[in-house]
Amino acid sequence: MRATVLHAPRDIRLDDVPDPQLRDDGDAIVRVVASCVCGSDLWPYRGINEVPGPMRIGHEFVGIIEEVGAEVSSLRAGDFVIAPFVYSDNTCKLCERGIHTSCVNGGFWGVDDRAGRTVDGGQGELVRVPLADGTLVALAEQPSQELVAHLLTLSDVFPTGHHAALLAGVRPGSTVAVVGDGAVGLSAVLAAKRLGAGRIVAMSRHEDRQRLATGFGADEVVATRGKEGAAEVREMFDGIGADHVLECVGTKESMAQAMQCARPGGRVGFVGVPHGVEIDVRSMFYRNLGVAGGVAPARAYIDELLPDVLSGTVTPGDVFDLTVPLDQVADGYRAMDERTAVKAMLTV
Amino acid sequence: MRATVLHAPRDIRLDDVPDPQLRDDGDAIVRVVASCVCGSDLWPYRGINEVPGPMRIGHEFVGIIEEVGAEVSSLRAGDFVIAPFVYSDNTCKLCERGIHTSCVNGGFWGVDDRAGRTVDGGQGELVRVPLADGTLVALAEQPSQELVAHLLTLSDVFPTGHHAALLAGVRPGSTVAVVGDGAVGLSAVLAAKRLGAGRIVAMSRHEDRQRLATGFGADEVVATRGKEGAAEVREMFDGIGADHVLECVGTKESMAQAMQCARPGGRVGFVGVPHGVEIDVRSMFYRNLGVAGGVAPARAYIDELLPDVLSGTVTPGDVFDLTVPLDQVADGYRAMDERTAVKAMLTV
Repeated sequence: MRATVLHAPRDIRLDDVPDPQLRDDGDAIVRVVASCVCGSDLWPYRGINEVPGPMRIGHEFVGIIEEVGAEVSSLRAGDFVIAPFVYSDNTCKLCERGIHTSCVNGGFWGVDDRAGRTVDGGQGELVRVPLADGTLVALAEQPSQELVAHLLTLSDVFPTGHHAALLAGVRPGSTVAVVGDGAVGLSAVLAAKRLGAGRIVAMSRHEDRQRLATGFGADEVVATRGKEGAAEVREMFDGIGADHVLECVGTKESMAQAMQCARPGGRVGFVGVPHGVEIDVRSMFYRNLGVAGGVAPARAYIDELLPDVLSGTVTPGDVFDLTVPLDQVADGYRAMDERTAVKAMLTV
Repeated sequence: MRATVLHAPRDIRLDDVPDPQLRDDGDAIVRVVASCVCGSDLWPYRGINEVPGPMRIGHEFVGIIEEVGAEVSSLRAGDFVIAPFVYSDNTCKLCERGIHTSCVNGGFWGVDDRAGRTVDGGQGELVRVPLADGTLVALAEQPSQELVAHLLTLSDVFPTGHHAALLAGVRPGSTVAVVGDGAVGLSAVLAAKRLGAGRIVAMSRHEDRQRLATGFGADEVVATRGKEGAAEVREMFDGIGADHVLECVGTKESMAQAMQCARPGGRVGFVGVPHGVEIDVRSMFYRNLGVAGGVAPARAYIDELLPDVLSGTVTPGDVFDLTVPLDQVADGYRAMDERTAVKAMLTV
């Protein structure tokens, strides 16, 4: 089969690799229908995260079950499935508590499993899925072509926006500021709106992304960044700041901006992979701030979010403004790297 | 009148100072019945916080109203009142949101007000209370002598423990670890128990404090500190750690210990005044940790906590293991500095 391999920074190719085989009785083989490029894929692509050698990549995909192992009970060949961006058993003590991303038996796509055997990345034609019963969510019927992009967001980007909103404690009627206008930031706007936020301010300097943010439910947009932008946000919210701030970038600057947007007693939820971010706890103390963040347990949220996607109540797939066939995966990366695309979908 | 003045590190005296006078129509003058020494008073006492010159000190007191200004409507002479450890108007946008410690018109005891006029510290005979209607909570009747110590804890230490528990999200049945066995840590044990925590582990090396913690509701005690102590705590909670960790010290070491005690997806509430504490956000990210902390808005909590104190359901004043008359205030400080007392009450 063909699968995306990152050979070195900015050297990304669709290579011929061995077809995956069932290795455990709990495995499934999925034929990928669509996958996509994540902002976090850009860290190794840009060489900011080390690329020690050729590596499989991609962790967001939907597809059709080809084959299941002897012990798989909830899935069968032909099922359309959504793969959350980590695999997990859905039964351990941490999955029970909704933290599937810390599953004691789980792992990441594209990284060898505990037995040292290949787990495919999501940006390929086929994927061996360990712990298939725990990991995959099957639809009751085949989705329409139009739904595929929206369903694909349930792998990662929409649950990640939802996670930011939950971490920050968004509630009906409360006020929200969103830092970051990438696909995650935009999804966070949508998630906050869906949770009933009373007023949402999106921080974005780009007209196309501002439009998407507004379409997802942002009431206002602030184009200024940094301290000045945060001061504008505070001014918009009674002069004190927002109840909840969703930090969707992961840099030192974006975290500082987020904390400055929050009112005393406010909460910052962060979901951008942090790079070199430290918080001076004293600065939190006198303003009674809270900060919570992490890798979104997408598996925990799919059951809640899926019905709204199937019904068309939300259209999170609007974040995809570029669709390329898998053999042009390098173009998808380039477009996101150069920020000419918000998020690129790869069709197989 | 006589009031406690910190002249320089470890030079604390009961001095003759001018009697306070009503300065605003919203002021009240309170005759102090009892006050106490806070762990945070020890920072300047020890010279860790700068002592730029002689300073009034003390921020926890209960007393009797002597006199009220023309606009004070909810209080009258003779009322027994509890003073939260900051004064606040109880009406501004931040008080409305329960963050009285960030009141736009509020301030700290012992620090001159915005007009540059003296606001007395709590460790004295009389205190001018600005914004008296917003600040003070009056009892319907005079309390018994036995209740005074318990009521005094509502100024600061018990609401601070309660704040830690709320910040960490303690819920009925959930699991809790408490870092710090000072009066705040012990109060946090009591608060977590009161909120229905299913299992509480107190971390303490001192037998007398272990006994207090157990009396307040700790199910178990871990005497080991640091990484090893945290590993013990994780082992006790399913090998993954506690749902909620209450950090009641404020040092780099105690915060690290607290974060190591939390399970993935757990929450740390911190209420010890942070000194040189920084958090590496990446270490939170992969474990989905949340950290929230601050100065407890005692005023916001007194209405909820007071009935349980009046009924004797909780006895938070058990943290006082030393009572000295005000003119021996230096002995109270010394005992706390040398850790021969958990918390010293000063009677007038």
